[in-house]
Amino acid sequence: MTETNEDYKGYREPLLSVLKHYEAKVWSEIEAETTRGAFKGIILPRSETADPNHLVIKMDNGYNVGLHYNTIEDIHIIGRRVADYHIPEKEFPYDPIKRNVTLLGTGGTIASRLDYRTGAVIPAFSPGELYGAVPELAGICNLKTKKLYGVFSENIGPQHWVGTAEAIKKEIENGVDGIVIGHGTDTMHYTSAALSFMIKNPPVPIVMVGSQRSSDRPSSDAALNLINSVWTAAHSDIAEVMVCMFGPTSDQYDLLHRGTRVRKMHSSYRSTFRTIGDTPIGYVSQQEGLKLIKHDYRKRRAECKVEIDTVFDERVSIVYYYPNMKPDIIDSLVDKGYKGIVIAGTGLGHVNKPLYPSLKRACDSGVHIYMTVETLWGFVQMYVYDTGRDIMDLGVIPAANMLPETAYVKLGWALGHTHDKDKVRDIMLTPIAGEITEREPIDGYLIFQGGLPELEDFMKLHMR
Amino acid sequence: MTETNEDYKGYREPLLSVLKHYEAKVWSEIEAETTRGAFKGIILPRSETADPNHLVIKMDNGYNVGLHYNTIEDIHIIGRRVADYHIPEKEFPYDPIKRNVTLLGTGGTIASRLDYRTGAVIPAFSPGELYGAVPELAGICNLKTKKLYGVFSENIGPQHWVGTAEAIKKEIENGVDGIVIGHGTDTMHYTSAALSFMIKNPPVPIVMVGSQRSSDRPSSDAALNLINSVWTAAHSDIAEVMVCMFGPTSDQYDLLHRGTRVRKMHSSYRSTFRTIGDTPIGYVSQQEGLKLIKHDYRKRRAECKVEIDTVFDERVSIVYYYPNMKPDIIDSLVDKGYKGIVIAGTGLGHVNKPLYPSLKRACDSGVHIYMTVETLWGFVQMYVYDTGRDIMDLGVIPAANMLPETAYVKLGWALGHTHDKDKVRDIMLTPIAGEITEREPIDGYLIFQGGLPELEDFMKLHMR
Repeated sequence: MTETNEDYKGYREPLLSVLKHYEAKVWSEIEAETTRGAFKGIILPRSETADPNHLVIKMDNGYNVGLHYNTIEDIHIIGRRVADYHIPEKEFPYDPIKRNVTLLGTGGTIASRLDYRTGAVIPAFSPGELYGAVPELAGICNLKTKKLYGVFSENIGPQHWVGTAEAIKKEIENGVDGIVIGHGTDTMHYTSAALSFMIKNPPVPIVMVGSQRSSDRPSSDAALNLINSVWTAAHSDIAEVMVCMFGPTSDQYDLLHRGTRVRKMHSSYRSTFRTIGDTPIGYVSQQEGLKLIKHDYRKRRAECKVEIDTVFDERVSIVYYYPNMKPDIIDSLVDKGYKGIVIAGTGLGHVNKPLYPSLKRACDSGVHIYMTVETLWGFVQMYVYDTGRDIMDLGVIPAANMLPETAYVKLGWALGHTHDKDKVRDIMLTPIAGEITEREPIDGYLIFQGGLPELEDFMKLHMR
Repeated sequence: MTETNEDYKGYREPLLSVLKHYEAKVWSEIEAETTRGAFKGIILPRSETADPNHLVIKMDNGYNVGLHYNTIEDIHIIGRRVADYHIPEKEFPYDPIKRNVTLLGTGGTIASRLDYRTGAVIPAFSPGELYGAVPELAGICNLKTKKLYGVFSENIGPQHWVGTAEAIKKEIENGVDGIVIGHGTDTMHYTSAALSFMIKNPPVPIVMVGSQRSSDRPSSDAALNLINSVWTAAHSDIAEVMVCMFGPTSDQYDLLHRGTRVRKMHSSYRSTFRTIGDTPIGYVSQQEGLKLIKHDYRKRRAECKVEIDTVFDERVSIVYYYPNMKPDIIDSLVDKGYKGIVIAGTGLGHVNKPLYPSLKRACDSGVHIYMTVETLWGFVQMYVYDTGRDIMDLGVIPAANMLPETAYVKLGWALGHTHDKDKVRDIMLTPIAGEITEREPIDGYLIFQGGLPELEDFMKLHMR
């Protein structure tokens, strides 16, 4: 089908001819002159499905870069360095005294030796491989792994949420003491919200984990996140859906975020996940174990059964308000058959007046519209101003302090159960998993610096 | 036209009959029993255009609340307290030695004695009224005021941006030393971005200001913000479009945010405005004046001319990506004639694969699509992963670290000049007013605590 062979593994036309011309084979160390400057690094192999236009080289700083074929002016071969991406596989020891954890893989950087997406992937995913890469894991629990999907997280959707919930149910019924879910970071917080609603009152911890830097880079957070998430699943008594990711300081610890109140807040930093409008549940490190910040969480129970509720009506959307938004944005959604709309409005929950007739028409025709705030922090408060009250009179319902992303997931889930206006409203506005809270704690705005009591105190004094 | 009279000022049916039944007139102190509990407060007058369904009372805590007429079960009259909202008007002194500042009003809380939106508005807007309310202003400069609009900020749009830019030009040509713009907070950051692009290299400071709490409430930020913004306009040498709003600590100071890098981040806190992905330019307080944080700003010049460039093509939109987004979202925009789309993508700038054909069709048909990140912090980096490169191959252009809101404003402005793909790209990716930066400073993530050197140092050590 393609001209690929091992020397040029994964490369196809139009790039293949360029590489053959310079005899620039996979694992060659090269200097490429391009219209965008010179790049030095090692040519990585690609997967068959990778885009055919980019030559991918790993630079000395650990970053990969993709060079478009038509920017390449010259290639000099410097040498050849086959990267040793082999993972020494050791048998994961089984200890009948230790707790049992299952790691479910959906894709993402966490489970790979090289970055999952480069094409040069050697997935470290069997317990033996993980043990070879991160030997600390064997001290924590007995670990079983199962690959559910191998999907970039921007391609994760409702069918994966449902499948993951079903796999979790199965594992819990098999008696595991905790679940870890490896997941790409991009949409992890949507999946954690979905699992929070779909898995009813789980008896054990369900911990989502990923990494922002692949494990071949010196600053990788993969091993730390993996160790702390596996520890939390095995030993914590927090029986909720959580996200376990790198904390915000140079100390090496992870924060445990409630699945419905977490959001990715930086495109590249390791400390990207933040709890919004609340504090994290706790932080966890190898040195100190789990330190709780919140105490109102669901406790672990010695049960092997769990109920799941995996409905989702896909006809839902998020509308992010901007000045001068035209009513055709709302009209189009109604015309296309959308049944639920989450608006991220300005301030306390506003949109401009020209949208009012369209919103009324939508509500009157049975579309369920919920208001959240694009400030992310703070509550919708539509009773304060006339305009807010006007918008409520159209039929738009304020969603308290639910994050827009969480409200989107919950609305799809609610509409999977019923389209009765009052019942949907009941489901939406009754907190199930912390997605709506009574109030925002004083240190819930913008940043919580867990693990640093002096700063916590400082913030409490100064943070308003 | 309506049955309104002074006793029931601004109230219409269906509420008017209810009020008449109880003889509950404006300025009556009442206790209302409703299906949602009892509320005690003073009945406020309404504006003629207010919604007719809500009785608005001001409670003792300073908050206004709107009671829907069909929730009202009984009203007891306790007394009558005509609120003294009269502002003692004093003649603003003119001092030929002092600098001259013009305050342009567009609406919002800053310029009113009572909350602008309650209907019980007594706008404090003449220099004499402002002097009566905030006598410190007379020590700062000679102040002139001009009301441009009286618009809730969610209703502000391109026509107001253009009108405000034109008014600014006129004032600068008249020789003022600085401009202050009173504006509702909801969309202030969109307007500040628009003015940053429309006013080319202004010679004097242009300072936007608002308040999160109306000036009749004890915790109001109105006076502080007004004083500091007027001071900055008169005396700072920062000739840029800025937002001057309450800083994040209990110390009373304001932060000066660059107009293209600021965002409202909390629906109700006073310290809602934050610089994203950079530090503020400086902070300003009455005690210490201006303290600079950044030094790479445009300096004040002794010039009375300024060029404005007030084009805007309204056929632009923001698409906020969510998992399972369907291609019909993109298709609809193209069908409706939109010419520019700013995507807020996941992670480094991704959307799911099912959108690819629609994005390609859109780009091929001449729609300009730019990618930003919904993490808000961090850069788009579409060269890192195959999927990012695939999306670029469709014609989608990464917008570096431009905020989605700023990219929306800039794209409308760019398309007002040209629809040539390369020229639009040139405009979009060439920084004009700090909307794209080389890198994010180490303390540019999530929060900058200006004015607190000990915390600044702490953050520099710990914030990654």
